[in-house]
Amino acid sequence: MGENIGAAARAMWNFGLDRMSIVAPRDGWPNPRAVAMASGAGRLLDEARLVRSTSEAVADAAFVYATTARSRELKKDVVTPLVAMQDAATRIAGGQGVAVLFGPERAGLQNDDVARANAIISVPVNPEFPSLNLAQCVLLTAYEWHRASGSAPRRRREPTEFAAASHAEVEHLASHYEDRLQDAGFFFPPEKAAGMKQTLRNLWSRMPLTSADVQVFHGILRQIVRWKERDD
Amino acid sequence: MGENIGAAARAMWNFGLDRMSIVAPRDGWPNPRAVAMASGAGRLLDEARLVRSTSEAVADAAFVYATTARSRELKKDVVTPLVAMQDAATRIAGGQGVAVLFGPERAGLQNDDVARANAIISVPVNPEFPSLNLAQCVLLTAYEWHRASGSAPRRRREPTEFAAASHAEVEHLASHYEDRLQDAGFFFPPEKAAGMKQTLRNLWSRMPLTSADVQVFHGILRQIVRWKERDD
Repeated sequence: MGENIGAAARAMWNFGLDRMSIVAPRDGWPNPRAVAMASGAGRLLDEARLVRSTSEAVADAAFVYATTARSRELKKDVVTPLVAMQDAATRIAGGQGVAVLFGPERAGLQNDDVARANAIISVPVNPEFPSLNLAQCVLLTAYEWHRASGSAPRRRREPTEFAAASHAEVEHLASHYEDRLQDAGFFFPPEKAAGMKQTLRNLWSRMPLTSADVQVFHGILRQIVRWKERDD
Repeated sequence: MGENIGAAARAMWNFGLDRMSIVAPRDGWPNPRAVAMASGAGRLLDEARLVRSTSEAVADAAFVYATTARSRELKKDVVTPLVAMQDAATRIAGGQGVAVLFGPERAGLQNDDVARANAIISVPVNPEFPSLNLAQCVLLTAYEWHRASGSAPRRRREPTEFAAASHAEVEHLASHYEDRLQDAGFFFPPEKAAGMKQTLRNLWSRMPLTSADVQVFHGILRQIVRWKERDD
């Protein structure tokens, strides 16, 4: 179905894959429904290779993966998308071409197609509900490819504005609270005061405070004290 | 849209997740379109909790992830689904409840929702084509959950004294400060009040507070207000 081909193109391009081959599409080619579904990934369809057989589609590849829901072809390695795409990244870095075969929505790949593959990709789904559609299967494989190929952005956290507060800043904040709470009679009874102060110090030092956070906590305390004093 | 809720249910159940809460669905609930789309995952919809607010949805969770396409909320950690679900598996093994928030198809989560989260999940997509839909985002997160939960390193269960505060406890703490600071005239000028409140919510939700810490912060505020009132 055209819709499934279009959705597969979107799933590929979400993770930077753009080389699609289409084997003997049921409804001919080009297919306006595929184009409508692909929207922003339409370029993949324009540039897709139209071929008559699976064998032609993977002719250039040195290593071929077939995706199946059930692993009918037990004589081959059956691996997860993760393992497959890590292997693919290694092969490609070594100059090999790698192809992944996806079957049509309902029927999946035919045994003849699976037979051409060097290994099988099977997504480890919930055995009670193994209902991935074609585009979802492409999505998960492309997602793993993206990660394995090393293009995943590292964990972001903005540098300067969100810099962790210095020890001196946290110390100053702790003293500010300790002093005002002392005035407010928080540390009571006296024999427990030392322990309570330590609990508070521990609390501040355990929090991952930024310089900006420290200013907010100063501001909170200052405003409440001002409120009190205004009424005095 | 009902279809998106149904597709999200399918994506969850494909990887064994079945606890869904639905916040104020646009078209009411139950929704026959959601049921039609969910097909084999209909049980998730039957058992879904219908709640009025995001805050109610995540009340029992000690740690909340929000998913966003763009990381508007840069002061929080932005992590991949992989890192998030490994962390979630560790937290859950340690007895903490973890929730993941997903926004509606087009608009995504509102800033107020993101403000309640402890960290952000962002899928590292192709920057030229970042077009994941809701169900795809759920699918990738559930996929990573399935993998992480199968291999989660067990962690010593923390003694209760150090138990992470629940979302409801932190929410209550945030409201306590917000209310007193409102009385104290902290949110000034009025046109900045909403932003200042959001900054504060973000601050509280970023802190790794234990239940004991929450009590200390309540105690600090209560004592200072009592101090003020004593003098009134």
